[in-house]
Amino acid sequence: MSSLALYTLQQLVKRAVSDDLDDSPDTPSVGDDPLEDSNPVENEIFSSWALFILLLLLMLALWSSYFLQQRRIKAIHETVLSIFCGMIVGLIIRLSPGHYIQDAVKFNPGYFFNILLPPIILNSGYELHQANFFRNIGSILTFAIPGTFMSAMVVGVIVYIWTSIGLDGVKLEFVDALAVGATLSATDPVTILSIFNAYKVDPKLYTIIFGESLLNDAISIVMFETCQKFHGQPVKFSSFFEGIGLFLMTFTISTIIGIAIGILVALILKHSHVRRYPQIETCLVLLFAYQSYFFSNGAHMSGIVSLLFCGITLKHYAYYNMSRRTQIATKYIFQLLAQLSENFIFIYLGLSLFTEVELVFKPLLIIIAFISICVARWSAVFPLSRFLNFLYRARLEKYSGISNLNSNGNLSLNVPDEISHSYQMMIFWAGLRGAVGVALAMGFGGDAKWTLLATVLVVVVLTVILFGGTTASMLEILGIKTGCIDESADSDDEFDIEAPRFPLQANLTSHQNVLGNRRFMKTQPKAAPFRDNTSNNSSAVNLLDNESNPNIVNGGDDEEELIGSDIDEFRSDTLASPTFGNTSTNPDRGMLGAILSAEEHARWFTRFDEEVLKPVLLDTVPGIQSSANNSSSNLSGGRRE
Amino acid sequence: MSSLALYTLQQLVKRAVSDDLDDSPDTPSVGDDPLEDSNPVENEIFSSWALFILLLLLMLALWSSYFLQQRRIKAIHETVLSIFCGMIVGLIIRLSPGHYIQDAVKFNPGYFFNILLPPIILNSGYELHQANFFRNIGSILTFAIPGTFMSAMVVGVIVYIWTSIGLDGVKLEFVDALAVGATLSATDPVTILSIFNAYKVDPKLYTIIFGESLLNDAISIVMFETCQKFHGQPVKFSSFFEGIGLFLMTFTISTIIGIAIGILVALILKHSHVRRYPQIETCLVLLFAYQSYFFSNGAHMSGIVSLLFCGITLKHYAYYNMSRRTQIATKYIFQLLAQLSENFIFIYLGLSLFTEVELVFKPLLIIIAFISICVARWSAVFPLSRFLNFLYRARLEKYSGISNLNSNGNLSLNVPDEISHSYQMMIFWAGLRGAVGVALAMGFGGDAKWTLLATVLVVVVLTVILFGGTTASMLEILGIKTGCIDESADSDDEFDIEAPRFPLQANLTSHQNVLGNRRFMKTQPKAAPFRDNTSNNSSAVNLLDNESNPNIVNGGDDEEELIGSDIDEFRSDTLASPTFGNTSTNPDRGMLGAILSAEEHARWFTRFDEEVLKPVLLDTVPGIQSSANNSSSNLSGGRRE
Repeated sequence: MSSLALYTLQQLVKRAVSDDLDDSPDTPSVGDDPLEDSNPVENEIFSSWALFILLLLLMLALWSSYFLQQRRIKAIHETVLSIFCGMIVGLIIRLSPGHYIQDAVKFNPGYFFNILLPPIILNSGYELHQANFFRNIGSILTFAIPGTFMSAMVVGVIVYIWTSIGLDGVKLEFVDALAVGATLSATDPVTILSIFNAYKVDPKLYTIIFGESLLNDAISIVMFETCQKFHGQPVKFSSFFEGIGLFLMTFTISTIIGIAIGILVALILKHSHVRRYPQIETCLVLLFAYQSYFFSNGAHMSGIVSLLFCGITLKHYAYYNMSRRTQIATKYIFQLLAQLSENFIFIYLGLSLFTEVELVFKPLLIIIAFISICVARWSAVFPLSRFLNFLYRARLEKYSGISNLNSNGNLSLNVPDEISHSYQMMIFWAGLRGAVGVALAMGFGGDAKWTLLATVLVVVVLTVILFGGTTASMLEILGIKTGCIDESADSDDEFDIEAPRFPLQANLTSHQNVLGNRRFMKTQPKAAPFRDNTSNNSSAVNLLDNESNPNIVNGGDDEEELIGSDIDEFRSDTLASPTFGNTSTNPDRGMLGAILSAEEHARWFTRFDEEVLKPVLLDTVPGIQSSANNSSSNLSGGRRE
Repeated sequence: MSSLALYTLQQLVKRAVSDDLDDSPDTPSVGDDPLEDSNPVENEIFSSWALFILLLLLMLALWSSYFLQQRRIKAIHETVLSIFCGMIVGLIIRLSPGHYIQDAVKFNPGYFFNILLPPIILNSGYELHQANFFRNIGSILTFAIPGTFMSAMVVGVIVYIWTSIGLDGVKLEFVDALAVGATLSATDPVTILSIFNAYKVDPKLYTIIFGESLLNDAISIVMFETCQKFHGQPVKFSSFFEGIGLFLMTFTISTIIGIAIGILVALILKHSHVRRYPQIETCLVLLFAYQSYFFSNGAHMSGIVSLLFCGITLKHYAYYNMSRRTQIATKYIFQLLAQLSENFIFIYLGLSLFTEVELVFKPLLIIIAFISICVARWSAVFPLSRFLNFLYRARLEKYSGISNLNSNGNLSLNVPDEISHSYQMMIFWAGLRGAVGVALAMGFGGDAKWTLLATVLVVVVLTVILFGGTTASMLEILGIKTGCIDESADSDDEFDIEAPRFPLQANLTSHQNVLGNRRFMKTQPKAAPFRDNTSNNSSAVNLLDNESNPNIVNGGDDEEELIGSDIDEFRSDTLASPTFGNTSTNPDRGMLGAILSAEEHARWFTRFDEEVLKPVLLDTVPGIQSSANNSSSNLSGGRRE
C-alpha cells in the first residue's frame, strides 16, 4: 500500500516537473491549447489545487473576520488582512514552479463580472433599506452621476498631462486617459460597506456612500465603454453630449429592465402555484434576478443598475408573494453568496498583484495616479456637497415659512447642513477604489495595457489599505456616530437569526434573553403576515406580548394591515408622518426632515403604489389559502387555551 | 434618444458581423488568444448572452418540472424535456453565425467537475437517510465495486473486439477500450434519483440504486485514470492487481479524508464561538465541505467519495453544533445548489450534442456501444444479485435457528429474497449513464478522441431518454411500490417547509390545516433541541399539543434526549430495536430484518458512537447558552399564562 502511495507521489512530482519543463514559468503563456488536449483528470487535479488554495484563503479571511469581531479588534480590518493574505500566497505561487495554478488564479474579468459581482449587487438591492435609500436618492444620484463624471475628467486630465510629459515613456490618447479616469472613479461597493457595516455607521451617511458606490460602478462602466468606442477617432465636442445621452439612456433603460423583471416575478408568483414547490420557487427567483443582470449586460445596458433595481423590486413586491420557505431561503442564499464574493474579491486583488506576470510597474505613474484620484475625489465631493446644502436650504425656504421670519444670513445659523462637513470628509475618505476598476482595466488595449493595468491595480490596493485601514480612526476623528443600531435594519437581522429559532426557543431552546425576545416580537409582525388577510393579526395580538407594537393594536382592521407593517413603515417613512423622526437616527433631521420628505413625487408614488400597484402585484387575496385560514385561527385559538 | 438606440443597435450588428467574418463558424477555433486581447466589456456581452441562454433553459426546465408536477403528468419526465430543450437550443446556436456563444456553452469538464458535480454529491450526503444507507451498505458496495468493474470489463472487451474488426476505421489499444468501458460504466446519480424522488419509490430500492450510482462514479474515475496510466505500456497480469490495489487505497483514503474534515468542522464549531456569527458560520461549513472535495481530488484521491462522506459526517455530528440559522441555511443552500446543478447537467448534455463541432459520429460503433452497456449491466446486476441473495440466506441460517427446523430446499420457499427479481430488473433498468461519463470521455487522447467522445455522448443521451423515459412504466410493469412516503424523509421535508412558518402561523399567519400542524409538531422536536440541555424539553411539552410525540414525554430526563430524537432514531434504526419495522417500508423485512441488522459491527459502531464520539464531538454542554436558559424558560412560562 505504501509503495502505491509512493508511486502516486512520484507521478505527481514527475508531472509537476515535466510541466515545469514544458513551459518555463518566465514565459507568459496563456496556454489553453496544450491543456485542451491533455487529460481532464490531470487538469482537474491542478484546478483542484488552485481552487483549494483560493477556498483556503477565503476560509482564512472569514476566520480572521470572526476572530477580529470576537476580540473586538477594530484597528485592523479583515479586508486589509485579506489583501495581504492574497499577496503573500500570490508571491508563493509566483515563486513556485509550474504555471498552471498561476494561470488558474489569475484575475479574470469574466469571472468577476459574471460570478463575483452579481451576488453582491443583488444582495445589496434585496437588503436595501428602501426608505433610507429613496429618502436620500437626490444626494446619491448627485454624487453618483456628476460626481463620478467630474472625478473621471479630473483623473483623465491629470494622467493625460503627465503622460504627455513623457517621463515614463507611456503615450496615451486623451480618450484613453479618460478611460483610465473612468476605471479609477468606480468607488467600491464592497470594501467600504463591509467596514461601515462592522462599525454600524449613521444610516444616512451609510446610505449615501452605499448608493453612490453602487451606482457609480455603472457610470464608470458606461463611461469606459464610451471612451473605448471613441478610441482612435478625433475627439469632437459633440461626442461629449453623445456620451451623456448614451449614458442617460443606458441608466433609464437598465432601471426599467430591472423593475420590469421584478414585477414579472411578482406576477408569476401571484398567478401560479409555484409556491407549492418552494425548492423550484427559490431557484426561479434567483434565476430571474440573474437574468436581469445578464439580459441587461447582453443588451449593452448596465447589468449592475438592472440587478440593483430588480433586487429592490423583488423585495418590495415579489417577496410578499413567496412561500415562507422561499422568503427565508432567498435571504440566506443571497447573503451567503454576497459574503463569499465580497471576501473573495479582496483576496483576488491581492493575489493578482503577483500572479499577473505581465504587469509593468511605473512607480511615478502610480504616484501621480494616486494623487490624482485624491484630487479628483476632493474636487467632486466638496463642491457637490455645497451644491446639495444650497439646494436643501432653498427648498426649505420654499416649503417652510422660516425664511419669512429671519433674514437669509440668520437662517444659515439655525438650519443644519444637509451634508455636514464631517460627512463630506467621510464621503471623501470613503472613495476607495475597487475590483470593478481592475476588471475594467483588463480591457485596455495597445502598448500601454500592462502599465495601465498595473497602475490601476496598485492604486486600488493602495486605496483599500490606506483609506480602508484608516476608516475606523477617521470615523473617530470626525466624530461621526458609530454603533447606530438602525432600528429596522437591526430588526431585520434579528429576524434572520432569531425567527427560525423562535418556535424552538419558545418551546424547546433558549438562545435569547428577554430583551431580545421583546424586540423580536416587535419585529415579528413586520416579516410575517403577508399571505393572510383575515383575523390572524388579531389572534397574533392576543398570543403575543404586544405592548411594544402599537402598529398592530391600532390598525387591526385597516386595509394597510393586510400588506404588513414593513410596507407600512416604508410608506410612513416616505411620507411626512409622525413616525418619521423615529426611524431617522440623524438628530439633525426631525421636523425639517418631515418637511423635506413631504415632496410631491414621493407622496404621489406612495399613493399609486398603495392603490394600484400593490393590489395588482401582491397576493393579498390568496384563494388557495382560504381553507387553511380557519384551521389556523382555530389552532391559535386552541393554543391560547 | 432613439437615434442613440439605433446607434447601439448598429454597433451590435456590426460587431456580430465582423465577428462572423473574423472566424467563419465552420473552422473549429478554440480562440482564447484573440479574446484575451479584446475588450472585456465586449467579451462580457457575449458571455452575458451565453449565460442568459443557459439560465433561460434552466428556468424552462424548472418551469416544466413545476408544470409536470402540478398537472400530475407522469408520462414525460422533465429530464427528458431538458435534454430535448438543450438539443434544440444547441442546434439553433450551431446554425446561427458567430462562434463565441457556441464556445461559451461547450461542455467543459472543468466546470462539470468543479462546479456542477460537487453540490449534487454534497447534498446527497447531507440529505442521505443514514439508517437506510448503512443498512444496505453491503448491497451498495457489491453493486458499486465489483459491479462497475465487471461492467467496464464487458464493455471494454466488446468495444475492443468490434474495433479490432475495423469496420469503422477506429483502432484502439485494449487499455483504451477498457477506458471506454470505464466511462460507460458510471451510472448517473442525478437522472435516476430525480425520477425516483418524483415517484417516491420504495426506500430500499432507492437507497441501493442511489448508493451504487454515487459510488460507482468514483470507481469509474479511478478505473479511467488507471487505464490512462497504462496507456502505451504492455498489459501485464500484475497491472490488474496493481489497479485493484490503487483503487482500494483511493477509496479508503478518500473516505478517511471526508470523515476527518467532517469531524474537524464539528470540533471547530464545538470549541469556538463562530455560531454567534451565523453568516460566517454558514460560509465556513460550505467551504469546508468543498475543501474536502478539492483536497481529495488534488491529492489524486476521489473527491466524490470524500465529499459524500464529509456530507454524511457533517449531518451526523457537525449539524448539531451549528446555530439554528446555519442549520436551516446550509440545508436550503445545499438543496438549491444541487437542484440547479441537476437541472443544468441535462441541458448541458443536450446542448453539447450540437455545440461540440469536432464530434465524429460512427453509427455502428454507437449501436455496438449501446448494446454492450446493456449486456454489461445485465451481466453485472443479475449474478451479483444472486450472490447477495445467497449471502443473505447463508447469514440468516447462521443467525436464526430456521435452518435447523427445515431443510435447505424448504427454506427458500419461506425466506424472501434480499433482492427480489423485480428489484433486480429495476436495478438493471436504472443503469442510465450520465454526465460523469461524458466528462471523463473528454480526456481521451489520440486519433479516436472525437469518435469516442461522440459515441459516449450519444449513448449517454440515449440511455437517459430510453431508460429514463420508461422508468415510470417499468415501475408499474414490475409492480414496484411507489408513492412510499418515507417516514423520516417526509418529516424532514415538512420541517424544511413548515418550520420557519411555525412562529408566524401560531402568531399571525395561517398556512396550515390542523393535520399539518399535528405532523409538524411531531417532527419539530427532531430538529429542534440540540443546543439546550436543561428544562427546555419539558417546557416544550407543556406548550405543544404533544399527544403525537411519545419520544418527548417518555424520555424527558434521558441523556439521549439532549442530542435530539433524530440521532435517537438513527440509533434505533441501526440497532435491532422494536422500532425497526416502522421505518422499513419493505414488508418483507420485519423480523428477519431485525435479525439481520443485529450484526456485530453495527452494534459495535453505534455503541462507540454514542459513548465516545458524540460526547467528544457534540456540543451537548454549551457553556455560552447557560445564561439564556433561564430567560427562555421564563418566556415560555409567561407565554403559557
